[in-house]
Formats: sequence, structure tokens, C-alpha cells
Amino acid sequence: MTTREPQQERSRTTRRRLIDAAVECLAERGWHGTTVSVIAERAGVSRGAAQHHFPTREDLVVAAVAFLGEEQITELRQRAAALPQGPSRAGPVAEMLLNLFTGPKFRAALHLWVAASTDEALREVLVPLEARVGREAHRVALELLGADEAQPGVRETVQATLDLARGLGLANLLTDDTRRRNQIIRQWARILEPTVAATADSAAS
Amino acid sequence: MTTREPQQERSRTTRRRLIDAAVECLAERGWHGTTVSVIAERAGVSRGAAQHHFPTREDLVVAAVAFLGEEQITELRQRAAALPQGPSRAGPVAEMLLNLFTGPKFRAALHLWVAASTDEALREVLVPLEARVGREAHRVALELLGADEAQPGVRETVQATLDLARGLGLANLLTDDTRRRNQIIRQWARILEPTVAATADSAAS
Repeated sequence: MTTREPQQERSRTTRRRLIDAAVECLAERGWHGTTVSVIAERAGVSRGAAQHHFPTREDLVVAAVAFLGEEQITELRQRAAALPQGPSRAGPVAEMLLNLFTGPKFRAALHLWVAASTDEALREVLVPLEARVGREAHRVALELLGADEAQPGVRETVQATLDLARGLGLANLLTDDTRRRNQIIRQWARILEPTVAATADSAAS
Repeated sequence: MTTREPQQERSRTTRRRLIDAAVECLAERGWHGTTVSVIAERAGVSRGAAQHHFPTREDLVVAAVAFLGEEQITELRQRAAALPQGPSRAGPVAEMLLNLFTGPKFRAALHLWVAASTDEALREVLVPLEARVGREAHRVALELLGADEAQPGVRETVQATLDLARGLGLANLLTDDTRRRNQIIRQWARILEPTVAATADSAAS
């Protein structure tokens, strides 16, 4: 069956398997335990094929983190459509955003970020990616809240929400922090409410 | 002069030099580049003397992170005494707390936390330390705000402040994020104001 798969699709499947394996590997073993050989073996791909798609370890892990960041943003956008309008939106949005960085994808990215702080080559490829994914995440958070950045304080509250989400991801790294996080999410929804309500008012006027 | 230094004081000086060297080393090279030999050399202490004080690399780095966490909390407490009473306290407190994790001490701790996520032995010593330092930081944040945990939402807002601070520390890891952070700090002061004001009201009643 695989031999009948068109070349382009096969290539896409291989890339995807390498990306998934890279994220798993980073999350479980960290940057120092993540090599092209280890990733290729986990993906069931030859080392040569892996290097055909991604010449270096940096290329592969950066592509992986970028891909997963975009996938997560697409998923958020799809869920946004089902949300209620007005202030009651604040609760489900707080939950979606503040749980964003609690899984193995964030752990994988965190390994890269921290490794990059002592690795110049890795830093150079990650900084532009961080900026791009950060901008996208900010845009989708605004959409989710239905918030208007022209209102004073809205931009900063939305930014704080994403920074808080990353802080909560960190707090969930070594222990299961779900219970404490859920209480913070409830309080955060109250803090976000005026942001959503102000926008709804101004849209109505 | 050093030979006249009392034994106990000399021992304290050595420990302190090892701790400072461990933090510098972690912040610059990460966990994988931090060995007892490297730390001892940087501290100007023999490897044997270093191991007399701290038998393993884990002992040394954990002591370092614990010591610096406590030092930071003591410093915050001293600065708390100089703060104004009432809601105007929110501004300087937001600034103090949200800048807490932007320096090399946080970077050192972050290397350890992330390494511990893939290293069982390190995780075992770090988890109780994380809980202890977390509780202390929460207590000092409450003191700084002059906030009363019995008021609904106060506990969670204070927790969110520290989680946000860690998120902002992460955002400052690869690039200088000061400008963006300062805007978030201003908005955060507005969000914290009712927490401080509610407490001041209830204290006055």
C-alpha cells in the first residue's frame, strides 16, 4: 500500500512522523538527549531520509515546534466559533488559554527555549520563531475574547493572559498543578470579564 | 588575614562562594555544563573542599537555588516596609513582583527545573524545594500587597501574580522583554488595586 501512496503525500507523512517523534523525544529526554538518529529511529525513518527532510537537528526541532504551535492555534480558532457572545465568554476562554501550555508540547518547547539560552546557534533560529508564534497567539487570544485592542488596557490584559498561561505551564512541569490552576482560572475569568464586556458595550453603541 | 579568620566564618565564606559560582555556572552553561569541578574552579575552591560542603552536584545546586530564593524573599520583605498604605501600594508591588524572575537567578533555577523534568533524582530533591519556596513567595506577596486572603478571589489573584511573574521571566529568557513587561506591569497594578483597596476598606471597618 505504501508504494502506491503518491510521492508528495509520502513525503508529508514522513515529515509529520519526524515532527511528532521530535516533540516526544524533546519532552521525554530534553535537548541533550534529542539527536537526529534518536528521532529517526522513533519515527521509523532512516537517518538519511530524516536528513533529507531536515539537514540538522536544529532544523528538525524548530520545524516541529513551529508546526505544533500553528496546529494549536488552528485548533483554538475552530473552538472559538462555538463560544457564546459577551461577558459569559470569559469563563471558557480563560479555561482554554490558561490550559494551553500544560502538556508535552509545551514541555518540548521549554527544553528548546532553555537550551537556546546557552546555545547561540539555537537562539538565532528560535528568536524569530518565538516572535512569530507569540504574535499569532496574541491575535487568536483577542479573537477568542472578542476583545478590542483599541480599548485602554485590553492589549496588556491579553498579553498578561498568555504570560500567565506560560507561568502556569512552568508550575505544571514537575507536579500535577491542575487543582490550583483551576482555581486561578475561575478568578481569571472574573478579571477578564470587564475586558469582554467593555468591547461588547462599545460594539453595541 | 584568611588564616586568622575563624573556622566557622571561613566555612561560611566557602559555602557562599560555591553557591554564587553554582548559580553563575547554571545560568551561563545550563545543568549539563555544570559540574562540581567547574563550580569549584570558578569559586577558587579545591574539588575536595567543595565536596566536603556539598557531596554531590545535586546537593550543591539545590542549596544554591534554595539560598538565593530565601535571600530574594528577605530583600522583598525589607523593601515592603517602605511602601505606602492603601491602593497606591499596587503600583510599586506590581513592579517588584513582576520583575522578580527576570535575572540570572531565575535563569539558573529554570535550567534546574527543566533538567529535573527528565531526571528523576533531581526531581525528587527539587519538588519539596519548589513547594517550600512557592509558599514563602506567596506569603511575602500577600504581605507586600497588604492583602487579606479571607477576601474572595484574593488568594487566587496573588497566586496568578506570581505565575505571571514566572511567565514574564520566561519571556525575558532569549530577548530583552523590558519594554513590553513595563506596559503589562502598569496594567497589572490596575488589576491589583481592588485587591488592596478591598483589604484596606475591611481593615478600616
